Amino acid sequence: MSNRTREGSIKWQGDAWRLQVFYIEAPDGRIVEKGVIEHPGSVVIVPLLDDQVLMLRQYRLSFDDVILELPAGTREHGEDWLTCAQREIREESGYQAEKWHLIGHLWPAPGLTDEQMAIYLATELTPAPLEADFDEEIEVVTFPLAELIKMALDGRLQDAKSVVAILRTAHYLEQRSVD
Amino acid sequence: MSNRTREGSIKWQGDAWRLQVFYIEAPDGRIVEKGVIEHPGSVVIVPLLDDQVLMLRQYRLSFDDVILELPAGTREHGEDWLTCAQREIREESGYQAEKWHLIGHLWPAPGLTDEQMAIYLATELTPAPLEADFDEEIEVVTFPLAELIKMALDGRLQDAKSVVAILRTAHYLEQRSVD
Repeated sequence: MSNRTREGSIKWQGDAWRLQVFYIEAPDGRIVEKGVIEHPGSVVIVPLLDDQVLMLRQYRLSFDDVILELPAGTREHGEDWLTCAQREIREESGYQAEKWHLIGHLWPAPGLTDEQMAIYLATELTPAPLEADFDEEIEVVTFPLAELIKMALDGRLQDAKSVVAILRTAHYLEQRSVD
Repeated sequence: MSNRTREGSIKWQGDAWRLQVFYIEAPDGRIVEKGVIEHPGSVVIVPLLDDQVLMLRQYRLSFDDVILELPAGTREHGEDWLTCAQREIREESGYQAEKWHLIGHLWPAPGLTDEQMAIYLATELTPAPLEADFDEEIEVVTFPLAELIKMALDGRLQDAKSVVAILRTAHYLEQRSVD
């Protein structure tokens, strides 16, 4: 089934990800140039403080605007997934968590990138700020989980990783309360 | 709040999207090189046939593997969003739909791209195949909506747009049956 040729060439290398371009043979024999963003993987975190979630209003260069999303971040070279989540929650929300629950994975954009994202629910939070990345502009805002579930379902929350992580959290907590 | 400089340069232009690189001034004054994928926008479709959803097993170059996802596609130059959805459902699933319901939008990956995605529920389906894109490898597979909801919540469905679109569909149908 595979039609990927391995002779990709790197067109741009950023600090977190790079663009690789492949020349692939389509089923009809034509050769097509296709770009793939090669990504080291990332985490998205649901920091739950009682029934409140710590969300971010973060400037995103892509939109040249501030958007509402969960804390998240890219793995550093060779970094363990949980270690990445434990660093990012402190850098972005100013809290650390005693308990970590891996609640699945997601692929943000398989048509663009090989990025895989691990989803963590973080509970038993205490303040423990780490210095934020020098190039990030972030404000922490708190929402009730119940309100975020509504926003994820009715479309007010548009960031895909946040929608998936909030709805998986709701399901996970529901299952646990049933056990 | 904005720190985007407008003097980006295009490092690569593909058939659907391009990589633009910006030199931005961070809050501390340092200049950083940042890449953004500039994308024309896309659609994801939930084709509902009775209580069954038409899903795809599609080869993705990014993973060099076949993944499970909903029909979706990128807008052609200047193409209307609904027109795009009506073309893609025929190319990818072989069906057309009588009724279209816009059930919100999502941002697949704001850290990478300005891509915005419109989510459509498509109902009253009848066969009407259009020739598929010459470079796509697709197999249509049918799942009960109830099973996909479980897969979206427990992590078996990993494609973010599909998770969001399935759970928004479930919510939309629930609201309508209540009205």
